[in-house]
Amino acid sequence: MQSTALENSQWIYIKRPNGRVTSEHYELRRSEITMELAEEEVLFQAKYISVDPYMRIQQHASNSWEEPHPLGVVQGAGAVGVVAASRSARWKEGDWALGYTGWQLYSKCHAKDLQKLDPDSAPVTTALGVLGMPGRTAWFGLMDAGRPKPGEVVLVSGAAGAVGSLVVQFAKRAGCRVYGIAGGADKCRFLVDDLGLDGAIDYRQFKTAEQLSSEIHRLTQGVDVYFDNVGGWITDAVMPRIKKRARIIICGAISQYDGGLDNPEQGPRFLHHMLYQRATIQGILARDYNHRMDEMIAIVSPWVKSGEIVFDETIIDGFEKLPDALNSLFEGRHRGKVLVRV
Amino acid sequence: MQSTALENSQWIYIKRPNGRVTSEHYELRRSEITMELAEEEVLFQAKYISVDPYMRIQQHASNSWEEPHPLGVVQGAGAVGVVAASRSARWKEGDWALGYTGWQLYSKCHAKDLQKLDPDSAPVTTALGVLGMPGRTAWFGLMDAGRPKPGEVVLVSGAAGAVGSLVVQFAKRAGCRVYGIAGGADKCRFLVDDLGLDGAIDYRQFKTAEQLSSEIHRLTQGVDVYFDNVGGWITDAVMPRIKKRARIIICGAISQYDGGLDNPEQGPRFLHHMLYQRATIQGILARDYNHRMDEMIAIVSPWVKSGEIVFDETIIDGFEKLPDALNSLFEGRHRGKVLVRV
Repeated sequence: MQSTALENSQWIYIKRPNGRVTSEHYELRRSEITMELAEEEVLFQAKYISVDPYMRIQQHASNSWEEPHPLGVVQGAGAVGVVAASRSARWKEGDWALGYTGWQLYSKCHAKDLQKLDPDSAPVTTALGVLGMPGRTAWFGLMDAGRPKPGEVVLVSGAAGAVGSLVVQFAKRAGCRVYGIAGGADKCRFLVDDLGLDGAIDYRQFKTAEQLSSEIHRLTQGVDVYFDNVGGWITDAVMPRIKKRARIIICGAISQYDGGLDNPEQGPRFLHHMLYQRATIQGILARDYNHRMDEMIAIVSPWVKSGEIVFDETIIDGFEKLPDALNSLFEGRHRGKVLVRV
Repeated sequence: MQSTALENSQWIYIKRPNGRVTSEHYELRRSEITMELAEEEVLFQAKYISVDPYMRIQQHASNSWEEPHPLGVVQGAGAVGVVAASRSARWKEGDWALGYTGWQLYSKCHAKDLQKLDPDSAPVTTALGVLGMPGRTAWFGLMDAGRPKPGEVVLVSGAAGAVGSLVVQFAKRAGCRVYGIAGGADKCRFLVDDLGLDGAIDYRQFKTAEQLSSEIHRLTQGVDVYFDNVGGWITDAVMPRIKKRARIIICGAISQYDGGLDNPEQGPRFLHHMLYQRATIQGILARDYNHRMDEMIAIVSPWVKSGEIVFDETIIDGFEKLPDALNSLFEGRHRGKVLVRV
């Protein structure tokens, strides 16, 4: 009966990047998608599609930890959208949902592979941000791996980003002195004025890790918890400033994603600081806390409702902008969670 | 009444080393020490004096973690010796004791600053090795920070050294597959034939970290616990081989002590491996487990008595050899715990 077809658009990942990922690594494919559905299948129409730094890690060829993202298929990504058609009792047309449906306008999913969203409870885009993967990463990365105590100094790199801007707020709520490192005066003002941080450092004002390190010391007098989203020379500047029993959380290494993972950059050795300070470095991934999502939601969602937490979003319009939006993450062009509205 | 004096010898630390520490950084001072004692004082005569890698760390000028070892005083060190005279009821002449009396033949100590040793219970030198600071470091570093589980792969760098040679044996007793990295065929044979390791790698047979890394992979198929005594390029070779949830214990970075701490060496960045594998790096120091010494002794001392544990010692004769003996640690010239008999 539903024999009409819709025009679909898909970004197909066709070529592994060596350095920065650009639109040449993708092919924009137009095709038709029929309205025919199997039992328990739904047709999902994306409205907001996510770009996240992990995508660039998965594109590395010499990924020893898991299979790299395959070529010739739709770029994987989280998306928020609506059910356009349904053959499941669980879903009706117009329902808002979260899915891992990738960079495409339409897709057919099994009813159980979508997650219901209540647009009256929180803006639907929060499912890709503060109440989604970035929120989970920030919450458990800080609280579980970082174990912040009131009065401790928490320093966050990439502090104006999707994860960082939540970590700093969670750390403030935990009673810590909180400092952020970000690129540019605008982001630093945002951190201090809007997020209430005790201080922010614009790393672009410093030419060397040593200079940045001095500023970190001047501002913080030592770091108890370092939540690292960027790696590279910014992390080099932090390492000599850690305090005894410091906890360092490696959540990302965005400065290294353009090529440093396949061919590691050189940097100063710092493990002796770990020894002196009996510090801990722990790598975390969002997936490790999938099963504790409800726990995070129960705590954070009231703060979202009451407006006690700032969830900054940069929304870029246009499906064709997806590769450029991904690229923008590695240039630090935007603040907060970056989404593409399609 | 005890007005006679003894001829004392002391190694005075007089100059900070930039690279390797040698006898030019010390001055051999001869002096007289009277037999006069205050109440509760004892005269301690060293018989075995310790050289340990931590001494070189303390000599770094830019030590941000604590005051560097002061110049113009006797080099600090643990020593085992006998009570030569006593004005304390706790001690009588001829008692064996452990003290932190430094590189000198005689010293006067408060009665409570020495620790009694029973020469019938274990060889007295074990108080500087398996039942002393190195044993404590090995035991708690592995068991507390490493948390080895039966069947897991434990890899130890500096495996034939004072701490490493104990870690590997403790790991075997914990039911692990255990591999050691050491310099030279003799040490590797010792690890496999005498300590019962599952395999040993002579790092001197490899020209690059990549080659060493391949051998580590071939032998271990991935590392759950890496106990690191050496740092530098050997650790570079291990990092890409860690398994999910790996625990990395930084107990030392002996390859870096000759100058790398003041002016860090460059090496490949590796924190992204921490991320992929959600691994943990933890720095430990022996002093953190001072208060748990009895716990270690209660477990390990029966193994020492029953001969179930090999505690290898290199004993160098002659007080004048102390600076060279310290130096030998950084050249990997000896196996096991290095002591100077005086």
